[in-house]
Amino acid sequence: MNFFLQLCVINKIVDKANMEFSADLIAQQVGGIVEGDGSVTVSTFSKIEEAKPGAITFLANPKYTHFVYSTDASIVLVRKDFVAEAPIKATLIRVDDPYSTLSDLLTMVAKFMFVMPTGIEQPCHIAEGVTVDDDSYVGAFAYIGEGAKLGKAVKIFPQSYIGRNVVIGDGTIIYPGVKIYDGCHVGSRCIIHAGAVIGADGFGFAPTADGYHKIPQIGIVEIADDVEIGANTTVDRATMGATRVGRGTKLDNLIQVAHNVEIGESTVIAAQTGVAGSTKIGSWCMIGGQVGFAGHITVGNKVGIGAQSGVPNNVADDSKIMGYPAVPARDFMRQSAYLKRLGELFDRVKKLENK
Amino acid sequence: MNFFLQLCVINKIVDKANMEFSADLIAQQVGGIVEGDGSVTVSTFSKIEEAKPGAITFLANPKYTHFVYSTDASIVLVRKDFVAEAPIKATLIRVDDPYSTLSDLLTMVAKFMFVMPTGIEQPCHIAEGVTVDDDSYVGAFAYIGEGAKLGKAVKIFPQSYIGRNVVIGDGTIIYPGVKIYDGCHVGSRCIIHAGAVIGADGFGFAPTADGYHKIPQIGIVEIADDVEIGANTTVDRATMGATRVGRGTKLDNLIQVAHNVEIGESTVIAAQTGVAGSTKIGSWCMIGGQVGFAGHITVGNKVGIGAQSGVPNNVADDSKIMGYPAVPARDFMRQSAYLKRLGELFDRVKKLENK
Amino acid sequence: MNFFLQLCVINKIVDKANMEFSADLIAQQVGGIVEGDGSVTVSTFSKIEEAKPGAITFLANPKYTHFVYSTDASIVLVRKDFVAEAPIKATLIRVDDPYSTLSDLLTMVAKFMFVMPTGIEQPCHIAEGVTVDDDSYVGAFAYIGEGAKLGKAVKIFPQSYIGRNVVIGDGTIIYPGVKIYDGCHVGSRCIIHAGAVIGADGFGFAPTADGYHKIPQIGIVEIADDVEIGANTTVDRATMGATRVGRGTKLDNLIQVAHNVEIGESTVIAAQTGVAGSTKIGSWCMIGGQVGFAGHITVGNKVGIGAQSGVPNNVADDSKIMGYPAVPARDFMRQSAYLKRLGELFDRVKKLENK
Repeated sequence: MNFFLQLCVINKIVDKANMEFSADLIAQQVGGIVEGDGSVTVSTFSKIEEAKPGAITFLANPKYTHFVYSTDASIVLVRKDFVAEAPIKATLIRVDDPYSTLSDLLTMVAKFMFVMPTGIEQPCHIAEGVTVDDDSYVGAFAYIGEGAKLGKAVKIFPQSYIGRNVVIGDGTIIYPGVKIYDGCHVGSRCIIHAGAVIGADGFGFAPTADGYHKIPQIGIVEIADDVEIGANTTVDRATMGATRVGRGTKLDNLIQVAHNVEIGESTVIAAQTGVAGSTKIGSWCMIGGQVGFAGHITVGNKVGIGAQSGVPNNVADDSKIMGYPAVPARDFMRQSAYLKRLGELFDRVKKLENK
Repeated sequence: MNFFLQLCVINKIVDKANMEFSADLIAQQVGGIVEGDGSVTVSTFSKIEEAKPGAITFLANPKYTHFVYSTDASIVLVRKDFVAEAPIKATLIRVDDPYSTLSDLLTMVAKFMFVMPTGIEQPCHIAEGVTVDDDSYVGAFAYIGEGAKLGKAVKIFPQSYIGRNVVIGDGTIIYPGVKIYDGCHVGSRCIIHAGAVIGADGFGFAPTADGYHKIPQIGIVEIADDVEIGANTTVDRATMGATRVGRGTKLDNLIQVAHNVEIGESTVIAAQTGVAGSTKIGSWCMIGGQVGFAGHITVGNKVGIGAQSGVPNNVADDSKIMGYPAVPARDFMRQSAYLKRLGELFDRVKKLENK
Repeated sequence: MNFFLQLCVINKIVDKANMEFSADLIAQQVGGIVEGDGSVTVSTFSKIEEAKPGAITFLANPKYTHFVYSTDASIVLVRKDFVAEAPIKATLIRVDDPYSTLSDLLTMVAKFMFVMPTGIEQPCHIAEGVTVDDDSYVGAFAYIGEGAKLGKAVKIFPQSYIGRNVVIGDGTIIYPGVKIYDGCHVGSRCIIHAGAVIGADGFGFAPTADGYHKIPQIGIVEIADDVEIGANTTVDRATMGATRVGRGTKLDNLIQVAHNVEIGESTVIAAQTGVAGSTKIGSWCMIGGQVGFAGHITVGNKVGIGAQSGVPNNVADDSKIMGYPAVPARDFMRQSAYLKRLGELFDRVKKLENK
């Protein structure tokens, strides 16, 4: 598949010698069947509605089918059973699953485009005794504190801060400017995006007559394997014990995870959601953006929560909820519909009273 | 106008030899007419309600007129047609537009106060082949990757990260700690505030039985000219193609712009708003803080949206909307008023039923 | 109390020679009375519901009393007047206030665990003329601009940026990657967490036919003593004058404080709340997460505001409010209850109409 490695001269990002690949060559790589001119060449990817000549695109969502007849793309990946109802300008490559094929192409290209660096750039600060293996990267101006333990092929980008006694598993990528406070654990194959802060103090204060007294936060953060954490997201350390993010969970940007929160496995949370202290969220949940969770509640497994919802209480497994405060999604839809008709209801009541 | 450059010994920030300027001198500079003691001097700016002797202030908003009679400011900029209804202690300078005159004074002072540095501070990391012109600045601990192209007079503050093949236009200011991932484009005369992250991966995962599978994000971010981006705001790279922020658009702090979003020109968005993936927002929109936009919707031009609104669907040009979910602003006001009277309505219905 | 300094071989963070302390020894230090086996030893803290052998925990909240009978903790701190209603496996130490005793123990441990570094790590950038006293710390890759004034025992962690003429009081801790723009003031004994941005430009633009014209932001930020600011929180500089955060106020993570906002003393604000420009918030307020404040309003003292509320208008002292838009908390509860019964009300009105 070497030729795909070269495909990445696409997309204006890597601006090397102009290389182009024919439909025939691509079809051969992905096990597809060419329909139309197999000698047509592409040098970039594109969405079907925006594609220009020289681009390869795909058709997966039936809603977008009409674009296949008008697209300027040179090549379109389509399903094997796709039946054209009008002439198509582009060369087609028929595959089992166009989206999955595209994703594979993207993955190959991404690996080449975003080549992960290796080695140690100077100046950086690596505390005495910390070992960095040959497949790892420590960027310039990165800081690694005493007692930190780095796995194999760990990538620590410039200007990141790895506190004392932090543990990072194999293959994890820490993008520029991430800050991980002392003692926190990050699993293997995690991705932490720029500006994320892991392990800052939980928000714990005891009121006194003179003002608030800080409650020390001596716990840590434990991030399991295969977790992705978005840019500028914050995960606070526990007062005691650990704030936990489970295996395979994905957090978007600008999310707040407070002290002693526990999030299960394979849960996805969209941007700007906040989870207050000690709340437990289950596995395989799908949580929208800007949702707020009260503290000390328990949210079950496979729960779906609409964007901007406020969740004040426990939520049972498999619930679909929405609203502020959140109610079953169906009830929320009904409430919203009734709300729009409230003026009418006031009028109707007035009419009845006037009788 | 050199003397204004010296005015900046004001405001306690630049603490140089104490320099003071008379009302006569200022009036001469701004083309105003002095009323009262032209020899009175000032050395700082202030809001009218807080001004102390030695300060110059302005009166533009009629709501604040009463302060002109009690202010301790030494000089007040007023409209040419302002008619005093009581004695005024301060010296007045009459101008066509006091706010605009003040803004001009502020601009002159700001230029002096926040002198933009020039040159290259060591240690910084500038990849081989990247050129930095004489009017540009690269601060200490900044990182500029391979293939980056910097315009003229670009200011890159300390600890910022400019990824590989990033393009930055003339006169753009990158404040400390900004992170720009590989391949993103930033226009000319942009300002990006500290901690902003441009080009982190979009939040794209495909569910599988084992967990979520990352969809590579090989697109970029394209920021047009004259854009300002607030502190700790995040703009994600596109899955394919580009996430776009149009010319002259201003984003406040802590905003989330997801992958493949497109924002038009001269749109202003207040803090903590989030825009989900592939949504298009038009030009000349005014969007409040903490608003949430669903993904894959289209918002027209000149749309106004109230703070904290949730926008689930397309929005037509010139709409003014508000609420969760958002409705026309008038309807929202009515709904809120009706909501307050809901208890009364229940009582009235009960009364009718009892008859 | 030296032995507590050694207690910190706990919690897996500091992984030194395994040291253990007996109930007798701890009781002696905290003035408690041992009940049970005084020779049992502990080497870590834990929550009562999670504790394992070798851990010390506490019982303060009556809701958790049942755990005292089943906990695997080796030692439990309980009130002097606690009466057991079943056999307890753990050794008890009776004290006046278990939570306060635990907090004292935590404080002692935290001081040891998170030893504050001293000295200057190279490379860092300290402008000529800036003095750093012997008890202070400047981490690697930190940047301190011209004219900055640092108090005694100030801790500036790696990769932080202290702009020109910034003033920082005694004993203040600036965690990694904090950015403080030119001219801002931070008091004594403050804690600013990683990624916070203090003093970025306020969001001020004047519309013109061509687009928005930037209004210079020449004011500063003034943070009083004993303030804590959370990770990735942003506090903008004033247009003129100062944005102010009062003594002892605590801001959680990802909060937005706009230009010219003034927050009083000992007010606590939870994560992701936003305060629009020129709004004044009083002292001793308790404000939930994701709250939004309109600009130019005044919120009194001792005000309580529920999470996710939208506050459009002034709020009187001692108010407890909630909702979007916010109303008295009791009214919000009633509104929510009525909302759930709206469908029923429509049905009842229809029934009446049919008669």
